[in-house]
Amino acid sequence: MDDIFYEDVSPGAVLRAGPYVIPEQELLDFAAAWDPLPIHVDKDYAARHGGITAPGIYLLAVRMRLIHRLPFRRTVVAGFGFDEVRFHRPVHPADALTLELTWRDKRRSKSRPDCGIVSGHCVLVNAAGEMVMSHLDTILMRLRDPERAD
Amino acid sequence: MDDIFYEDVSPGAVLRAGPYVIPEQELLDFAAAWDPLPIHVDKDYAARHGGITAPGIYLLAVRMRLIHRLPFRRTVVAGFGFDEVRFHRPVHPADALTLELTWRDKRRSKSRPDCGIVSGHCVLVNAAGEMVMSHLDTILMRLRDPERAD
Repeated sequence: MDDIFYEDVSPGAVLRAGPYVIPEQELLDFAAAWDPLPIHVDKDYAARHGGITAPGIYLLAVRMRLIHRLPFRRTVVAGFGFDEVRFHRPVHPADALTLELTWRDKRRSKSRPDCGIVSGHCVLVNAAGEMVMSHLDTILMRLRDPERAD
Repeated sequence: MDDIFYEDVSPGAVLRAGPYVIPEQELLDFAAAWDPLPIHVDKDYAARHGGITAPGIYLLAVRMRLIHRLPFRRTVVAGFGFDEVRFHRPVHPADALTLELTWRDKRRSKSRPDCGIVSGHCVLVNAAGEMVMSHLDTILMRLRDPERAD
């Protein structure tokens, strides 16, 4: 896929990446380092409560890894932040997650004439088609041709 | 510090944890795994652009690690999500970050009479006192005594 520049962003269009199958050991190691709640790291405890679940922070990290499979590497300048981050359903080891990014809005940047501000709705979906995480993402993205763009 | 239950949450009160001094290798390893943009992983590239900066996802992970230094382990049941996550300033290796959590709001849960829903404003502050990241956090928290609480 060619690099996606500001001019290529079309509100309503959907990009997909994945699936990413959650490796149990990766989830356990991440949780042990960053969010060692029993439900994330203790298999005996978790077995009595529906099984090991992924920390929210880990799901955000998986989302970012999937974003890197899309052709933004040379065109995304910065991320402003996330809004409405929601964890809808538990994610377990071996779940296969797909990223769906739906472009929401775009406008030129006043301070960076070579860039635009783009927002998108990001969703992680499991193999059953259920939404497990969602949020809005707002990024600063390069224009292909600042002289000619609207 | 004693466990913090729902009854102990007082809107406006501030909890602090840290400082956490960002280890360069940890930042580089995290970025290589999850968000390998040149500004996060490539020292030569970064040297021409103000130095290596921390990925936003890494800062959220550091925030969670600092949350675990507060006495919530037995009392936080789940996180609903984050709102208004903003990355205000770049964070570099060796920066010393402190978490400031200001309680915002609280109410009893209708579906879980043994719990309440609590929100707080979380800020990571560097050694110069500058805010580097902020967001709202909403969590489900146990009551100490469901029979007697308001």
